[in-house]
Amino acid sequence: MERRKVGILGATGTVGQRFIQLLESHPWFEISWLAASERSAGKRFDEACKWKLDTPMPARIAEMVLQPNTPAANTGEIPHVIFSSVDSDVAKELEPLFVATGCAVISNSSAFRMTPDVPLVIPEVNADHLDMVSQQAAFKQNGGYLVTNPNCSAIGLVLALKPLEERFGIEALFVTTMQAVSGAGYPGVPSLDILGNVVPFIKNEEEKMQEEVGKLLGNFNGSGIDALPARVSAHCNRVAVIDGHTECVSIKLKKPATYEEVLAAWNDFAPLAQHHLPSAPAHPVIFTNAPDRPQPRLDVNAGNGMSTTVGRLRPCSLFDWKFVLLSHNTVRGAAGAAVLNAEVLAKLNKLPGKVLHTQTGAGREAVTA
Amino acid sequence: MERRKVGILGATGTVGQRFIQLLESHPWFEISWLAASERSAGKRFDEACKWKLDTPMPARIAEMVLQPNTPAANTGEIPHVIFSSVDSDVAKELEPLFVATGCAVISNSSAFRMTPDVPLVIPEVNADHLDMVSQQAAFKQNGGYLVTNPNCSAIGLVLALKPLEERFGIEALFVTTMQAVSGAGYPGVPSLDILGNVVPFIKNEEEKMQEEVGKLLGNFNGSGIDALPARVSAHCNRVAVIDGHTECVSIKLKKPATYEEVLAAWNDFAPLAQHHLPSAPAHPVIFTNAPDRPQPRLDVNAGNGMSTTVGRLRPCSLFDWKFVLLSHNTVRGAAGAAVLNAEVLAKLNKLPGKVLHTQTGAGREAVTA
Amino acid sequence: MERRKVGILGATGTVGQRFIQLLESHPWFEISWLAASERSAGKRFDEACKWKLDTPMPARIAEMVLQPNTPAANTGEIPHVIFSSVDSDVAKELEPLFVATGCAVISNSSAFRMTPDVPLVIPEVNADHLDMVSQQAAFKQNGGYLVTNPNCSAIGLVLALKPLEERFGIEALFVTTMQAVSGAGYPGVPSLDILGNVVPFIKNEEEKMQEEVGKLLGNFNGSGIDALPARVSAHCNRVAVIDGHTECVSIKLKKPATYEEVLAAWNDFAPLAQHHLPSAPAHPVIFTNAPDRPQPRLDVNAGNGMSTTVGRLRPCSLFDWKFVLLSHNTVRGAAGAAVLNAEVLAKLNKLPGKVLHTQTGAGREAVTA
Amino acid sequence: MERRKVGILGATGTVGQRFIQLLESHPWFEISWLAASERSAGKRFDEACKWKLDTPMPARIAEMVLQPNTPAANTGEIPHVIFSSVDSDVAKELEPLFVATGCAVISNSSAFRMTPDVPLVIPEVNADHLDMVSQQAAFKQNGGYLVTNPNCSAIGLVLALKPLEERFGIEALFVTTMQAVSGAGYPGVPSLDILGNVVPFIKNEEEKMQEEVGKLLGNFNGSGIDALPARVSAHCNRVAVIDGHTECVSIKLKKPATYEEVLAAWNDFAPLAQHHLPSAPAHPVIFTNAPDRPQPRLDVNAGNGMSTTVGRLRPCSLFDWKFVLLSHNTVRGAAGAAVLNAEVLAKLNKLPGKVLHTQTGAGREAVTA
Repeated sequence: MERRKVGILGATGTVGQRFIQLLESHPWFEISWLAASERSAGKRFDEACKWKLDTPMPARIAEMVLQPNTPAANTGEIPHVIFSSVDSDVAKELEPLFVATGCAVISNSSAFRMTPDVPLVIPEVNADHLDMVSQQAAFKQNGGYLVTNPNCSAIGLVLALKPLEERFGIEALFVTTMQAVSGAGYPGVPSLDILGNVVPFIKNEEEKMQEEVGKLLGNFNGSGIDALPARVSAHCNRVAVIDGHTECVSIKLKKPATYEEVLAAWNDFAPLAQHHLPSAPAHPVIFTNAPDRPQPRLDVNAGNGMSTTVGRLRPCSLFDWKFVLLSHNTVRGAAGAAVLNAEVLAKLNKLPGKVLHTQTGAGREAVTA
Repeated sequence: MERRKVGILGATGTVGQRFIQLLESHPWFEISWLAASERSAGKRFDEACKWKLDTPMPARIAEMVLQPNTPAANTGEIPHVIFSSVDSDVAKELEPLFVATGCAVISNSSAFRMTPDVPLVIPEVNADHLDMVSQQAAFKQNGGYLVTNPNCSAIGLVLALKPLEERFGIEALFVTTMQAVSGAGYPGVPSLDILGNVVPFIKNEEEKMQEEVGKLLGNFNGSGIDALPARVSAHCNRVAVIDGHTECVSIKLKKPATYEEVLAAWNDFAPLAQHHLPSAPAHPVIFTNAPDRPQPRLDVNAGNGMSTTVGRLRPCSLFDWKFVLLSHNTVRGAAGAAVLNAEVLAKLNKLPGKVLHTQTGAGREAVTA
Repeated sequence: MERRKVGILGATGTVGQRFIQLLESHPWFEISWLAASERSAGKRFDEACKWKLDTPMPARIAEMVLQPNTPAANTGEIPHVIFSSVDSDVAKELEPLFVATGCAVISNSSAFRMTPDVPLVIPEVNADHLDMVSQQAAFKQNGGYLVTNPNCSAIGLVLALKPLEERFGIEALFVTTMQAVSGAGYPGVPSLDILGNVVPFIKNEEEKMQEEVGKLLGNFNGSGIDALPARVSAHCNRVAVIDGHTECVSIKLKKPATYEEVLAAWNDFAPLAQHHLPSAPAHPVIFTNAPDRPQPRLDVNAGNGMSTTVGRLRPCSLFDWKFVLLSHNTVRGAAGAAVLNAEVLAKLNKLPGKVLHTQTGAGREAVTA
Repeated sequence: MERRKVGILGATGTVGQRFIQLLESHPWFEISWLAASERSAGKRFDEACKWKLDTPMPARIAEMVLQPNTPAANTGEIPHVIFSSVDSDVAKELEPLFVATGCAVISNSSAFRMTPDVPLVIPEVNADHLDMVSQQAAFKQNGGYLVTNPNCSAIGLVLALKPLEERFGIEALFVTTMQAVSGAGYPGVPSLDILGNVVPFIKNEEEKMQEEVGKLLGNFNGSGIDALPARVSAHCNRVAVIDGHTECVSIKLKKPATYEEVLAAWNDFAPLAQHHLPSAPAHPVIFTNAPDRPQPRLDVNAGNGMSTTVGRLRPCSLFDWKFVLLSHNTVRGAAGAAVLNAEVLAKLNKLPGKVLHTQTGAGREAVTA
């Protein structure tokens, strides 16, 4: 299988670096384009980027020159598939420009997640929502479209919820998060704020979690999403952890489920098993029966960082069950989520053609003809 | 006012050290006796104790010799008032021995908290429960009795709940804790378990919180406590913080309350104001309107570590209100709680007489005659 | 004693906050003026400042309005004594402006520390260097002058070195620091850089330490400083500590000293004892014989944060002695250092007169006449 | 190549777990025997072991039953090659017992490192010292012998020193370490001691570093080691890092070397290149020219945890050069070091025959005949 050229918008950031780490040896994709803000465009990647991952910056990437972050300012080829991890307000402005030129923008930004015709997708949960891209205006014109993945704190949670929703129905849930600092990017959380400390506030996070859960578990009715009416109450906290969001959940189901039934729901959950996607973990939800797990330090890399680990399933004195879950916030919760979305789109033959010559102003059809 | 001699059982532990720190300059009490386990008894305090507080070990205490931890093994005077901070299983065995000799044992241990005739007290919340001591068998014989304070994670919570219970009634609540490592004593939590990590489990903690809340907010009917029937669901976690338990609460009230009414309930709460107790904070509950507070690093010492700080009051999508609270787990949550209990007992003239000569085998009356 | 009005330049920063904490209840000084950068000037202090200390922001300070950071832009009174804690490049520009209007600028900035006629002073070490202020051009005109204190990593070191230099002479030393994050201000060190990590680099820090030691221990020859020719090699690191710089030292003396002689040198060191300065600790150098001390968490507040704690004195296989020292980097190493300098100047009657009316454009003499 | 059976003595400890992690997929070795203390012997591995690595416990290992830790108490086969990671005092007693039965004991313990006829080896540094095993009494009888690897803080240092010693000679060095908590095992360092703290003391560590460097860089004269007479002064500290020892070095060379010459010495250093050992990194010493590296969080896994990363090479004002190095303390500094020693011994055909039937009491020859 030939590798498809892809680009990264916001390549120097924390999530951009994860995109590079995950894509550099990807069997289907090849990074051919890296873009960054004006301040960095024109520089070599290794001059502009403060690399913060514990694997080395790939030598090939280090030497690539950062491109401008608008189609108009680019003079070379822009790949048809663009992973985006820019800040929300920047995404709001830039992502539509690339969509308008026929690109599939696979975005980790929150800017358009709740936009009605934009799919908000976790492949194991609601891959059928991807059909909504055909309703996007740009798609009809030139095949460009926008697909988003959820917030880093919602994604691990919804992976654990989906099997329960399928079998028992969800009525309500409380969730308290203890989120890693990498979720705030770089420089992000000042050390004076988090060393030996807990910060019980992350801007807009509780709101995002509460509304994204409904859309993700909602039903695609052919034209839009009917959100799941389950009520969610979220408490979000920042803790002194590098990677891995831990979440404490109390859940009220629509129909009762025994301990064994809940476990079976999680253990049987493997909706992508037959698709052989490179980034899809064998087990999206891994149950641990250790009394004190999951823990970020020990479990964050389960399934190469793409699995949610759940544990401590026990009765709740108010709702039905309590449990704890853990998910890697910059892999499954950000870059890996987008890459998996792209893999599904590739499998469905929904990724636009190989290379876009922006200088001709032509869209996808012209190029792939 | 003359100072009353007091002793500390479990003097070398983390909470024992806090007792020393709080009592060494106390206007009413004077440490005259320190006891420790067999391994340490007979040694100077500074030889046996790994001091872990950030104030110096008092010079006078450093030179004191540790006594054995049973009345029988003591050859000198044992004071009538004993603060205890030994492990629960040790407390179960030792505390009754001291009570039996006429001592008031003011205990931080969990061993007898739920025993029907043992008061579990936070002075601002349920000082009237102290009357139960007169029902204890030893009290009738020699004036000895046992009084306990709650678990470190329950105490800050109940301080914040009491004003709400008084004005609006509490029907149910969810609480997720992020607890400091000092709560586990020394050596306690291994660094390999908590550096850059969260441990979503503390043995028996959720059970303790759930049952203690009911007793603390319960009604003393003259012979026993009718527990408050409010349902509580607790999720307990350990985080990389030295001192200060942070708790996220969702609460359902019996009658509706506005934001202003909740704030007023907290701000007006000062039940001990007229008693001038040395350790009672002017404001047991302090509300902060900073969007990202309370935080352990910044707020743990509010009210000299005796106040609970609450913040982030906001509507809950499932219950009525959400808020965050913070309380110092080894001051208000342990040693300070016991000291304040002793101060109330002193004010009520319920502390037994000055010194007990255990070698005579006599109880309180004999000695104070 | 009436309190003298003082101002703080750079009041909202980490060190500015320490100045406020130390000065708000100071017996000799009264904060009457707070200045900040253009972005903050005109705002109330509590609107502009992200308070990061674990004591509450004083209510009086919270309501003060921040003034502009140049004399020209101020329309009200500027006090004659100004504590400065702005960044070095800002200090270079602003501090001379205030000196030119007759102010004593007591600066924590590095900008002018090595300027020949500017005293770099630790009162216990080289208070006589303060005489150099009379050589400053502004002083001759209007009484204004500039005094500096050393870098946060040099100050604790030199306190421990001075008694050894006096008695034995110092030939050379190696020092490796492990420095707290508060030394980098706020937001300062990103949490992604320091959680579970060590950063073996602090810009310009090794150079500053190496050159400041010589000036501090140097001899004032009446017109300038003859730096101590001791050779210093510094290795500077950042570690995950909030407050407190730890330093490992190997020292080569000019004449041999026994263990007891070194200890005696430290224990006898009390050069300010008879001056009764409010911020001077009874013991500038405290020796601990615990095998694993000093430690930042336990010893940082020794002497209210103004003492250096030394420990682990042991023979060095290359030089004479090895030891470890610890010093509070934002108290003794920054704000407290400047306050103590001001106290010495007050005692020496070298602080300029009370209030400066800058709107008249006049200098000190005019005002105090 | 058939896999050789190996055992692990002290299998449940921190280093024991690393042995399992490194050996479970090793191309040459196969774990057939795990031994632990009396308390754990007879239990399944997963019942007895608190697994603290961030990769899962291998399923096959989880089910293995722990064997007793003396040859006499074992009833089944003991492999001829035993990796040992028990505490020093335990090693002193147990390791000779296994050697006496004909085993090659490849030990990470400090018990016998300085024993004259026991090789203390880093393969890239002094593989020729392995010849000393033939001088051990047991070897002559039954082929059993003992080989050790250095202390975790010495090994990374000596890897960086060896190329300099070869080309320029080393006269003296200062080294200050900032060591990770995993070096102290589990439970090891209490969190109350290290959160937000530095502990400037590790028992016996400075002595070990100072003496091991001389033996490692010493010359094997045919019968024993002539230690390198370079003088070493070590300062050892514990910091809040999970894995990775950082060390600051000042070095005095015998003959001068330029910056480029030092770099060339490190870059050219590849003494095992032609041997194709599975655990030998391509580059034992990796130089980084980033101004603020190496850092444990970013560089600890260089060369799969088997490389030492050096950086910040700069002139020293007292000696010749200063630099910083980083090495993984439980991989290269412990389990990986022993595994690499075993690989060299395998390559040299010095590992004893396959399986030992201890019940027969026979040594190696008997069994392999």
